[in-house]
Amino acid sequence: MKKILGLFIVFSIYLSTVFAQNKIVVFQTDFGLKDGAVSAMKGVAMNVSSDLKLFDLTHEIPAYNIWEASYRLEQTIKYWPAGTVFVSVVDPGVGTSRRSVVLKTKSGHFIVTPDNGTLTLVAKSLGIESIREIDEAINRRKESKESYTFHGRDVYAFTAARLASGVITFDQVGKLLEPAVVSLAYQEAIQTGNIFKGNIPILDVQYGNVWTNISADMMKSSNLKYGSNLHFIIFKNKVKVCEIDAPYVATFGGVPEGKPLCYFNSLMQLSIALNMGDFASQYHIGSGPEWSVEVRVH
Amino acid sequence: MKKILGLFIVFSIYLSTVFAQNKIVVFQTDFGLKDGAVSAMKGVAMNVSSDLKLFDLTHEIPAYNIWEASYRLEQTIKYWPAGTVFVSVVDPGVGTSRRSVVLKTKSGHFIVTPDNGTLTLVAKSLGIESIREIDEAINRRKESKESYTFHGRDVYAFTAARLASGVITFDQVGKLLEPAVVSLAYQEAIQTGNIFKGNIPILDVQYGNVWTNISADMMKSSNLKYGSNLHFIIFKNKVKVCEIDAPYVATFGGVPEGKPLCYFNSLMQLSIALNMGDFASQYHIGSGPEWSVEVRVH
Amino acid sequence: MKKILGLFIVFSIYLSTVFAQNKIVVFQTDFGLKDGAVSAMKGVAMNVSSDLKLFDLTHEIPAYNIWEASYRLEQTIKYWPAGTVFVSVVDPGVGTSRRSVVLKTKSGHFIVTPDNGTLTLVAKSLGIESIREIDEAINRRKESKESYTFHGRDVYAFTAARLASGVITFDQVGKLLEPAVVSLAYQEAIQTGNIFKGNIPILDVQYGNVWTNISADMMKSSNLKYGSNLHFIIFKNKVKVCEIDAPYVATFGGVPEGKPLCYFNSLMQLSIALNMGDFASQYHIGSGPEWSVEVRVH
Repeated sequence: MKKILGLFIVFSIYLSTVFAQNKIVVFQTDFGLKDGAVSAMKGVAMNVSSDLKLFDLTHEIPAYNIWEASYRLEQTIKYWPAGTVFVSVVDPGVGTSRRSVVLKTKSGHFIVTPDNGTLTLVAKSLGIESIREIDEAINRRKESKESYTFHGRDVYAFTAARLASGVITFDQVGKLLEPAVVSLAYQEAIQTGNIFKGNIPILDVQYGNVWTNISADMMKSSNLKYGSNLHFIIFKNKVKVCEIDAPYVATFGGVPEGKPLCYFNSLMQLSIALNMGDFASQYHIGSGPEWSVEVRVH
Repeated sequence: MKKILGLFIVFSIYLSTVFAQNKIVVFQTDFGLKDGAVSAMKGVAMNVSSDLKLFDLTHEIPAYNIWEASYRLEQTIKYWPAGTVFVSVVDPGVGTSRRSVVLKTKSGHFIVTPDNGTLTLVAKSLGIESIREIDEAINRRKESKESYTFHGRDVYAFTAARLASGVITFDQVGKLLEPAVVSLAYQEAIQTGNIFKGNIPILDVQYGNVWTNISADMMKSSNLKYGSNLHFIIFKNKVKVCEIDAPYVATFGGVPEGKPLCYFNSLMQLSIALNMGDFASQYHIGSGPEWSVEVRVH
Repeated sequence: MKKILGLFIVFSIYLSTVFAQNKIVVFQTDFGLKDGAVSAMKGVAMNVSSDLKLFDLTHEIPAYNIWEASYRLEQTIKYWPAGTVFVSVVDPGVGTSRRSVVLKTKSGHFIVTPDNGTLTLVAKSLGIESIREIDEAINRRKESKESYTFHGRDVYAFTAARLASGVITFDQVGKLLEPAVVSLAYQEAIQTGNIFKGNIPILDVQYGNVWTNISADMMKSSNLKYGSNLHFIIFKNKVKVCEIDAPYVATFGGVPEGKPLCYFNSLMQLSIALNMGDFASQYHIGSGPEWSVEVRVH
């Protein structure tokens, strides 16, 4: 009996370690860092509890770009400890009927956000444990009962801080919703023999590299090896923008400066680049749900 | 007797909670984030006490723009807990006779800054509890006794860190000054019937929305309602730059894409924008003490 | 005997205070802040220990600019407490044979970086206490054993976090190397009578001021005084780009707006600027190892 109780306690501690909020809040917005909006959100969080540890994902999401917000979450959440609470505010529909939610992923992370497509990628990759709608009667700054609300500050930052600090439990966020999120349509990665189709979810903006959602795992079954020549066709809204060959190399230095190459990026997804150059600018490539790619391995 | 003592203790704790320094320091500068200046300031603060929690307001204040420094403080300070210490370094007069001060507001916030107009708006809105001049004989990094000083690092960050961590009390900042700050001149918000005059303190730079200092409170007495048409005239140095009508709407989506609208921003001040567009770029509108606006409600 | 023991304990505590890791990690990269790379690095660090305090030096190092990475470390490290762990990831040779190292300086700071020239300036100014090569068999995220590694996240941030939090000691980083780093060539500051030669290590980018590596100390022996006229010749790869006179003044306001002046910057190094203007833009001046300057004091 004691043994079972002991196991139960150990298991409870384990669970609370893995899934409890951990006082970490990570902010993402399209506000930029030139004004005081991000700082106001952090001030609100510090007012809830000065024990919180506040971080930034990015505040340079292009204005209104829900897709990119979705991608940045996908790119980074898994590196943070379970229990971390993310706030993502890219909210072109503020004031309209989109719902304000908190998603708990199967990995034990929380995302506080308008449910406007921001959760597209992360709901798929990390899985939906459950979703709750933020009850603004409770989870909203008392001082903000005016006709208009800066939701990022008055609802999202406030709710995230209360959740991360343990002032409220996940249950107290609000009522449970169906386990589904608003999703944006895009070309999922598929394989037909040595031909792969996929999406260009994002550019590696700093260097102009073009990332796809075609994974190294999926390409394992092709005869891909270092030195293989790959044929890329890139489309925007199904119209061809660029067609080019690029060898698959182990390092950027594997081709001369200025030449194309392909490689797997840090998320192990097929990417195309110019050695010491900017592929995206040179070939006018963008990213988002409307961009797709077809790749043939020779 | 015990009861009075108890009350006194409770009241003391209350006071210390509300008005004591809380180990939070928030930095604002026009240094940008490309070089090491902000990091050096934070290093100095960590050298004073590694218990401090350091945050940023913004470091993207346009170079030498004291007015915008003043506005960003006004926009955000009230969302941070009482006791938070702000450092604002926008200091075109470094090396000249402007005084280095710490303002304690009636709300219990501290601002460490050159007294060069940076305190214009916050002194007015939050009120001056008291102002002290920084005594550099004490409150300056020992290692910085050279002919030239990087005041942001050697005096302001250093003093803020000492104050926030409790190494010094507010009294130990330096001598008490008259309760007045250097102020910049601008058009305060005034009403004459259905006509309102005010200032354009700032643009919502990320989106190009134009904010005024005319509050929702002041406009209550007009016959403003959703759907009302407002006539805006915008001036720079009293010369007309733009004249335009804009309906007052509940959400940006209340007008077609690209069309003008007006609304109350997150500070509940009248603002004008284009739905999904950039009003300020399109109509060449700037902000600052030299910009004013006249609004007529039909 | 007790006294000696007491002294020994005090001395040990002193040493551990001065030289031990202090849970502070400061990040520098050329990744920018638009994507999730920096956040992923911080997530990895928080996964190692949520007690760490994470800061940024800058993430705006121009892509692949090892020299500037070297300079930003030089500019800021000394203001942080001993024991602080810096991570610098500017790594054009990722995937090639450059070594991954941790430098411990004589000042007790740690720098985790590819040894590709990033340590040029700091190794010289702060001195090399010792250098260890990161043993990736131990000091690499378990989850990252794929063919490709994002070293900044999987090795550097991970190792820095483990070192700063005390999960590993400095000895456990990996094997001891010869106390030498890869260094970039540049014009060191030298004096011949009233003529000084030096390098332009960096621009004060926010304001366009041009900084040299000629120190106030070195210039003490010249007849320099406020009002002295200095003759500057600036070279790129030994070709003259600009020749100009500038008075040595106490404050920028010592010359009319738009006029050149020289002064000692916050690192007490000779610098040239335009009052309220941008010297670097106007005269097309850059910085880096290929830029040099000759200064004559009249």
